[in-house]
Amino acid sequence: MKIALLGAGRIGRVHARAISDHPTAELASVSDAFSAAAESLASEYGVPVLSADDVFSSNDIDGVLIASSTPTHSDFLERAARSGKAVLCEKPIDLDLVRTRHCLAVLEEYPVTCALGFNRRHDPQFSALKTAMDSGRIGKLEMITITSRDPEPPPAEYIAASGGIFRDMSIHDLDMAAWLLGEPVTEVTVSGSCLVDPAIGEAGDLDSVLINLKSASGKLVNISNSRRACYGYDQRIEVFGSKGMLEARNETDTQLRFTGAEGVVDERPQWFFLERYSRAYAQEVADFVAAWQENRAPLAGAHDGLAALELAEAALISYREGRRVLLSEIR
Amino acid sequence: MKIALLGAGRIGRVHARAISDHPTAELASVSDAFSAAAESLASEYGVPVLSADDVFSSNDIDGVLIASSTPTHSDFLERAARSGKAVLCEKPIDLDLVRTRHCLAVLEEYPVTCALGFNRRHDPQFSALKTAMDSGRIGKLEMITITSRDPEPPPAEYIAASGGIFRDMSIHDLDMAAWLLGEPVTEVTVSGSCLVDPAIGEAGDLDSVLINLKSASGKLVNISNSRRACYGYDQRIEVFGSKGMLEARNETDTQLRFTGAEGVVDERPQWFFLERYSRAYAQEVADFVAAWQENRAPLAGAHDGLAALELAEAALISYREGRRVLLSEIR
Amino acid sequence: MKIALLGAGRIGRVHARAISDHPTAELASVSDAFSAAAESLASEYGVPVLSADDVFSSNDIDGVLIASSTPTHSDFLERAARSGKAVLCEKPIDLDLVRTRHCLAVLEEYPVTCALGFNRRHDPQFSALKTAMDSGRIGKLEMITITSRDPEPPPAEYIAASGGIFRDMSIHDLDMAAWLLGEPVTEVTVSGSCLVDPAIGEAGDLDSVLINLKSASGKLVNISNSRRACYGYDQRIEVFGSKGMLEARNETDTQLRFTGAEGVVDERPQWFFLERYSRAYAQEVADFVAAWQENRAPLAGAHDGLAALELAEAALISYREGRRVLLSEIR
Amino acid sequence: MKIALLGAGRIGRVHARAISDHPTAELASVSDAFSAAAESLASEYGVPVLSADDVFSSNDIDGVLIASSTPTHSDFLERAARSGKAVLCEKPIDLDLVRTRHCLAVLEEYPVTCALGFNRRHDPQFSALKTAMDSGRIGKLEMITITSRDPEPPPAEYIAASGGIFRDMSIHDLDMAAWLLGEPVTEVTVSGSCLVDPAIGEAGDLDSVLINLKSASGKLVNISNSRRACYGYDQRIEVFGSKGMLEARNETDTQLRFTGAEGVVDERPQWFFLERYSRAYAQEVADFVAAWQENRAPLAGAHDGLAALELAEAALISYREGRRVLLSEIR
Repeated sequence: MKIALLGAGRIGRVHARAISDHPTAELASVSDAFSAAAESLASEYGVPVLSADDVFSSNDIDGVLIASSTPTHSDFLERAARSGKAVLCEKPIDLDLVRTRHCLAVLEEYPVTCALGFNRRHDPQFSALKTAMDSGRIGKLEMITITSRDPEPPPAEYIAASGGIFRDMSIHDLDMAAWLLGEPVTEVTVSGSCLVDPAIGEAGDLDSVLINLKSASGKLVNISNSRRACYGYDQRIEVFGSKGMLEARNETDTQLRFTGAEGVVDERPQWFFLERYSRAYAQEVADFVAAWQENRAPLAGAHDGLAALELAEAALISYREGRRVLLSEIR
Repeated sequence: MKIALLGAGRIGRVHARAISDHPTAELASVSDAFSAAAESLASEYGVPVLSADDVFSSNDIDGVLIASSTPTHSDFLERAARSGKAVLCEKPIDLDLVRTRHCLAVLEEYPVTCALGFNRRHDPQFSALKTAMDSGRIGKLEMITITSRDPEPPPAEYIAASGGIFRDMSIHDLDMAAWLLGEPVTEVTVSGSCLVDPAIGEAGDLDSVLINLKSASGKLVNISNSRRACYGYDQRIEVFGSKGMLEARNETDTQLRFTGAEGVVDERPQWFFLERYSRAYAQEVADFVAAWQENRAPLAGAHDGLAALELAEAALISYREGRRVLLSEIR
Repeated sequence: MKIALLGAGRIGRVHARAISDHPTAELASVSDAFSAAAESLASEYGVPVLSADDVFSSNDIDGVLIASSTPTHSDFLERAARSGKAVLCEKPIDLDLVRTRHCLAVLEEYPVTCALGFNRRHDPQFSALKTAMDSGRIGKLEMITITSRDPEPPPAEYIAASGGIFRDMSIHDLDMAAWLLGEPVTEVTVSGSCLVDPAIGEAGDLDSVLINLKSASGKLVNISNSRRACYGYDQRIEVFGSKGMLEARNETDTQLRFTGAEGVVDERPQWFFLERYSRAYAQEVADFVAAWQENRAPLAGAHDGLAALELAEAALISYREGRRVLLSEIR
Repeated sequence: MKIALLGAGRIGRVHARAISDHPTAELASVSDAFSAAAESLASEYGVPVLSADDVFSSNDIDGVLIASSTPTHSDFLERAARSGKAVLCEKPIDLDLVRTRHCLAVLEEYPVTCALGFNRRHDPQFSALKTAMDSGRIGKLEMITITSRDPEPPPAEYIAASGGIFRDMSIHDLDMAAWLLGEPVTEVTVSGSCLVDPAIGEAGDLDSVLINLKSASGKLVNISNSRRACYGYDQRIEVFGSKGMLEARNETDTQLRFTGAEGVVDERPQWFFLERYSRAYAQEVADFVAAWQENRAPLAGAHDGLAALELAEAALISYREGRRVLLSEIR
């Protein structure tokens, strides 16, 4: 499968590596609005730099991987669909609900293999958790607790264009919750604060939030987000049911343990997403390629992007209006 | 210190043992509306059975420990105050806010050493957590996560008289949150379900709840309660701040670990509060005795009981009305 | 059961507390060659100071607990037997094999309830390990690994009178091995060094040793001893068999965990035997009292003391002669 | 660097993958006495099948990786040296000490980059342990404890040609001990049994051994080996010193934890060396390539193979003769 990469930034480089390491996928080209970035990455892999127009008009390219800036996603996604190319798009499709829905309508008209970059679904540990849960290990699911904290807050200028913590950061956890629940979320209730960096508050955003979800059958979810955990990327999931509990725990580089006068010391969690989800990125590309080859839906698709954005939207309203928000108000 | 015990039920027996084991306290008498229970426990410790009237009129008794049924608490508490006796009262003072406030007014008029049975504040692990936090170990506190699950749901008939999950079960966690925060809670936001036992729902109560609190300076708290954890009493606290995180973890009888074909197996958590908080009950009596001897306030007093009940009340309103409730509405 | 305490030093005080806390045992008297120590401890418990002669001639005393200095043990033990009193004797009976065997001969002639202070057999965790092993949890036992390290080396003057590391320190581990094996040890092979404190080497002793045992059916045991572990009392046992492994792990005061920039930090092990084996000492007295009441053998008796001393003797020969020593050479 | 692979069996396939994944190394050819195996692996990587003669006479090949059967190692190693090719040879060089020494003499005459396949030195966790130890984390090293157990015993026919447990299995641990000690081993003392499979005993071998080492400065090492651990590949190392202890612990596929009525269950250790040391094999090839490029010694070389074989030889004598063996007797 020949895949053109759109976007040669940090996450683009991760995807280039994943495509290149895949046994049957091939990196076909690199594109980037910033040509030096495109050229540097392209030369590293010995592939041509192409313009986006060239990519979409090429007969030689099977799929595109959209890793460019957020505002370009929906347009590239639609062009991929219209040109009949499979597409793996980094989240989000768009920060705006209306624009996102329009995109889904185009995809319905021009059905192509479309995967959305909810990388965490591809993490081996979370996969194992879901498999164990689906096989009945915890009986009937009742509560999900997701702890998700970044190591460091982003700069204030990033905040401005991010769409806010719910659309930018929590959206990964909202998708995880939706995926694990396996049934629609019906209610969202939120508390939030700015505790980490006053500049975030001045930009009109929050940096510490608690999001409670309730599903159609009454299952409860708590998501706890913070923009700063001094010990690294805190990525834990607990699912609790009638017959027990499963916990996905933080991962470390090694299992080395020190015992000394100050106590028993294990390694802190891996620092950030590039380390913690390195296997997930490879698996995400593998699932995309397999979905295209087998003409099946990938593990996460465009509709999952819409669903998560709706949850983020509901969370924002809940925070602003200080009330429980029904998803029926949004959909 | 000579202490009369009011109430010879399960928790009364725990307190009798704690008083008897204390180096300077002495079990003076046992009282119970059910005389056979009083006689059995009294004879076990070789002390007389007294009526409540005799207790309050005795010149020989320094303090009373109220471990009788909930509806008797506030009356006994007021009689203790009026008769100038120190009092350690099991929680709650009363399920009703107005009655509770009246009680506090009496205590103000007749000031005696008055301790309230928030046993968890006396747990060595939670004590160590608070000490470490207060000494700056985690920097500035930002978020508290309390997981609190009972091993088995109570019978439906218990539910009816319990005052509901918030006043009966969550109240311990609400007090823990208030104690750890060290500043007033200003907002309460709740989600809840009946997932464990339909009989609980039919009795008009919930068995699975998520309670979010926000404090005056914006700190966030999540409390997760369930009436049933098949693996035992799940009692965890996590405090998260600018310089790290402290976790109080579940306790086991031993540290024995088995490794076999099925994995690496540690003991499950201790089954319920009598095992988990055995040291806390002894410490609670010790603090009560010391507070009386040193004429100082005990670690938890009547005003803490009122504060926790107000939080439970706010939680109930938040659940019923689907909105954020300000504590200023209650106080 | 009325118990006279011989020896009012550090370990004597531990036993006084255990006797006093026991529901049916009673501390009858305290004796010590150093009268001020005897008087101080006796007055603490409101019991008389007696001479050893008075103790053994008293008709009012059911048992004696020998916690005096090592050279007095065997004589007191024999006098207890001859006077028909039950006896719980701190280890060792004597540092000399011949003297020890003589003592056992007296006990055979004057059979009384005789317990030896191998406190670790009474530890709840090691008990649970043995129970699980005996119930078949690990299948057929193959290997035992005992790690046993003191927090700090004793002063050089203690070393001189101690009988050396094998008779003084390893003897606890040798008894543990014998107890867990449940069959005779047939071979001992040793390596050793002086690494911690040169003064120990100058006193002709070792401070770091590895002892390998082999039992009649070929099971293997490794004991690893050091006189100094900067992180506290390191007391671990691993039993390995055809169906799995059981590990008794170090114990801590609480389960509090800190996560920060330096890693994930748990408490270090409890500091020394008074903390680590506090429950074991209480249980040891309880077993002694029950053995006397039920006229049964206690969990550890005089013959276990002899067996462990023989193993220590074999270990010393193995180290000195650089060879495998057969127990048949000693017995 | 163009590398010819000699040996297309299980471990040969692992090395083929590692060479192929390396950014600057290239799999040049595959050779195997069993031509179908060679062809299958060669076609998988699109490389030619060559005879060993062709490999050694080729001007186009920079290095050879010897993964053929043990009896061929020393001959291939010498031919590689004589033909001026770098060589990475699976352990052992030979099971015979004299033959091994001859090989080293040839290598001295024809110096090429020569790496020996002690894969564990390249394991990230053991590397981190050594780095931390060398940086002073545990102060002065005093004792090393190595637990090393295979999941399943090999078939009896394998035993016959294996050279026995010391030369076949313990040799990895002996090399690890030597590497971590950083100073010569001077004494070896051994206990052993046949507990797992009587067929192993009938073949004249042991399946459960305890090996104690002592180094020039008196440091002590215990190695505990078993041919069967029902829970998987048990690979633990503990280094203990004046300022603390470091433990390399078993690794699992994920950090998923289940808590239920039966306890708290973590994954068992990874099953065997292909899983546990997958990263080590990649790192071993990387070190070999870098050593060749930088003209430096690789992390493990031929003299390390000799040293470990001498230790294995001493262990065998110690077991047979029931005595401490000095390395000076062997060297």
